[in-house]
Amino acid sequence: MRVDFGRLKRDLLELGQIGRSASGGLTRPSWSDADAEARRWLLAKVDAAGMRAQVDAAGNILGRWQPGSPAVLVGSHIDTVPDGGALDGALGVLAGLECLRRIKEEGVALRRPLELIAFTDEEGAFGGFFGSYAFTGTLSKAAIPAMRDVRGARLVEAMGRHGLDPLAAPSAARDPKEIHAYVELHIEQGPVLERRRIPIGVVEQVVGIARFLVCYRGRADHAGTTPMGDRKDALLGAADLILQARELIQRDGTTASRVTVGMIQVMPGVTNIVPALASLTYELREVDAALLRRLADLSRSLAEDIASRWGLALSVETTLEIPPVPLAPRVQEAIIAATDELGLAHLRLPAMAGHDAQVVGRVAPAGMIFVPSKDGRSHSPLEATADDDLERGANVLLGTLLRLAA
Amino acid sequence: MRVDFGRLKRDLLELGQIGRSASGGLTRPSWSDADAEARRWLLAKVDAAGMRAQVDAAGNILGRWQPGSPAVLVGSHIDTVPDGGALDGALGVLAGLECLRRIKEEGVALRRPLELIAFTDEEGAFGGFFGSYAFTGTLSKAAIPAMRDVRGARLVEAMGRHGLDPLAAPSAARDPKEIHAYVELHIEQGPVLERRRIPIGVVEQVVGIARFLVCYRGRADHAGTTPMGDRKDALLGAADLILQARELIQRDGTTASRVTVGMIQVMPGVTNIVPALASLTYELREVDAALLRRLADLSRSLAEDIASRWGLALSVETTLEIPPVPLAPRVQEAIIAATDELGLAHLRLPAMAGHDAQVVGRVAPAGMIFVPSKDGRSHSPLEATADDDLERGANVLLGTLLRLAA
Repeated sequence: MRVDFGRLKRDLLELGQIGRSASGGLTRPSWSDADAEARRWLLAKVDAAGMRAQVDAAGNILGRWQPGSPAVLVGSHIDTVPDGGALDGALGVLAGLECLRRIKEEGVALRRPLELIAFTDEEGAFGGFFGSYAFTGTLSKAAIPAMRDVRGARLVEAMGRHGLDPLAAPSAARDPKEIHAYVELHIEQGPVLERRRIPIGVVEQVVGIARFLVCYRGRADHAGTTPMGDRKDALLGAADLILQARELIQRDGTTASRVTVGMIQVMPGVTNIVPALASLTYELREVDAALLRRLADLSRSLAEDIASRWGLALSVETTLEIPPVPLAPRVQEAIIAATDELGLAHLRLPAMAGHDAQVVGRVAPAGMIFVPSKDGRSHSPLEATADDDLERGANVLLGTLLRLAA
Repeated sequence: MRVDFGRLKRDLLELGQIGRSASGGLTRPSWSDADAEARRWLLAKVDAAGMRAQVDAAGNILGRWQPGSPAVLVGSHIDTVPDGGALDGALGVLAGLECLRRIKEEGVALRRPLELIAFTDEEGAFGGFFGSYAFTGTLSKAAIPAMRDVRGARLVEAMGRHGLDPLAAPSAARDPKEIHAYVELHIEQGPVLERRRIPIGVVEQVVGIARFLVCYRGRADHAGTTPMGDRKDALLGAADLILQARELIQRDGTTASRVTVGMIQVMPGVTNIVPALASLTYELREVDAALLRRLADLSRSLAEDIASRWGLALSVETTLEIPPVPLAPRVQEAIIAATDELGLAHLRLPAMAGHDAQVVGRVAPAGMIFVPSKDGRSHSPLEATADDDLERGANVLLGTLLRLAA
């Protein structure tokens, strides 16, 4: 049995028109008008496939035609980042839909029911993973009233306009025992598969993230009258950390370790005044929990050594800690068996970005299938994957679901 | 003959109350209400000293009691930076006033008339050096309509409220032949005199400044999915330049060379996106014109080497070029003779900040006398100079004026 790739491709193209801007990118953040249109479109597609379409209290879209539990879930999300691509998220949902359609059409007898899911706000218009947190019973109800988008609009009002109350979202929680497995097909968003010419990635774990706000404090001084040796220039500390953090990762990390300084600010921020304050965001990623902790410790020591070297005061505040999530060996084995059956090569690799599978993976067996991303691009209109790769990925997903539900 | 230091000190304290804020700092930018009050106060003081007070078309305040030319000018400015100190500028004007009062009181016969001047907007509320540019015939009339303060208020309206039209300011130009010399007493604003325990600085030249806007361009990439080796991180280039520029100055510059990166911005400026763009202000200062050019050339080469090293595109835009201004040997000799007569030690040194003397010094013989700054502080409420040092500086100014006018 194979997917009908022509049908899947048409679905991708149709959904890919919703929220498209002049630049060619897709802007379909959760609860925007474009997202609402995409939701209506998906509900109609699920309905047209002869499945029962449902929207849970968190706004997650569900589709199934068989009752019972535990179910084998398949999906991803249909919201996008601003100016994003047409595959990130949508591929997992629409390939899942196509697999379910084919299995239903063929009338395959399975032990476990299959269920499609499109999670709400994976990309973080209002914070990220809202739907999967709610679905897994890990959404903090206390945090909901404060959730806002970058323009300050409150989630309560944004969901209210669509007839939903986010404070009721925790009631969308599914008992983990009712989840036999969750499988997500996704573009890699990195260059590894393309570079190694391997069509299928089997995700072993989703990366852990540690974020810090690092602040060096020196002294504001006149850029002319203050000799170089008398300065306490906070920006020198920041520059030193930026360069040495990279060396630290290359020396003490693995090929799956990352460090990124994405924001920096100086005060007073005047051409002819030595910076008194330099603050920066410092993000570490690593798939091994112990190594992530070690890199965080080494980074703190490095930041302190640099503060001493330049005569600066230092503060380091932890702003985010997400431990790495290992994905279920049982799901990985099913993916590999499906890949082998199709005569395709596979590569085990980590997912270095966040995914709904990492949220589900904390409470139930979850797995991810990656297909190559052209030039590793994503969160960009340049995001692309060859049709052959999309078709291979969808057929591996189909084989995986058949195995998990059998 | 000596100054009446008690009288000078009272003047400093009185003027130091005008524009004082709760923080203890002075905020008296040009054409503010506080500046207008200070102007009225100064005009009354000049009048009370039996001198003819005048305001020229640029708003410069002038005072003299003898006709004729060429004159020996003495002064500085009475505007301040936001939250500045009570001595920067005011000392030069009030010590000049005190010297003229004493000379007039003693009825000393001099060959040349003496003239007090308080220049408009030295500190740059609307650009800087407005008064001295106009006075020396170097004000660009075409630039005046566009002059605005940081809040966007136009100079035309700010001066209009005080009954002056800035477009008429160029008519304040004095023929350089009518300026026998200009002398300015000022706090050092740096730590050199205090550290070396020398009461009098004889300024040899005013520093030259070269400013650049340096921009590194790389590629925005996902902080998770993009391996460290695949990145084109614009911030790495900026950090490398910030650190290596300091080494360049220490290796190829002198003790009077400075490099300062006072502002830096990254784009897109997001925690989990590799910076695509990092732009920074790069300011060089040096007193030797040839060395300043050489440091600028070396800096450009360094910026280019760094761009190659990190695989980045680079643009460097010159935003300001002020050549160093040598001060007149004749005025320096008069200052040294006056210092010697008082039995005081002196140090020849450069002025590393901008001063009206550098503007006047381009067209006529100019000189500056420095007194120590406590901890080198200035442009701050912490700005301070010991009374003994103020008195010594004022007496050196008096001796210098007597020599230059004799």
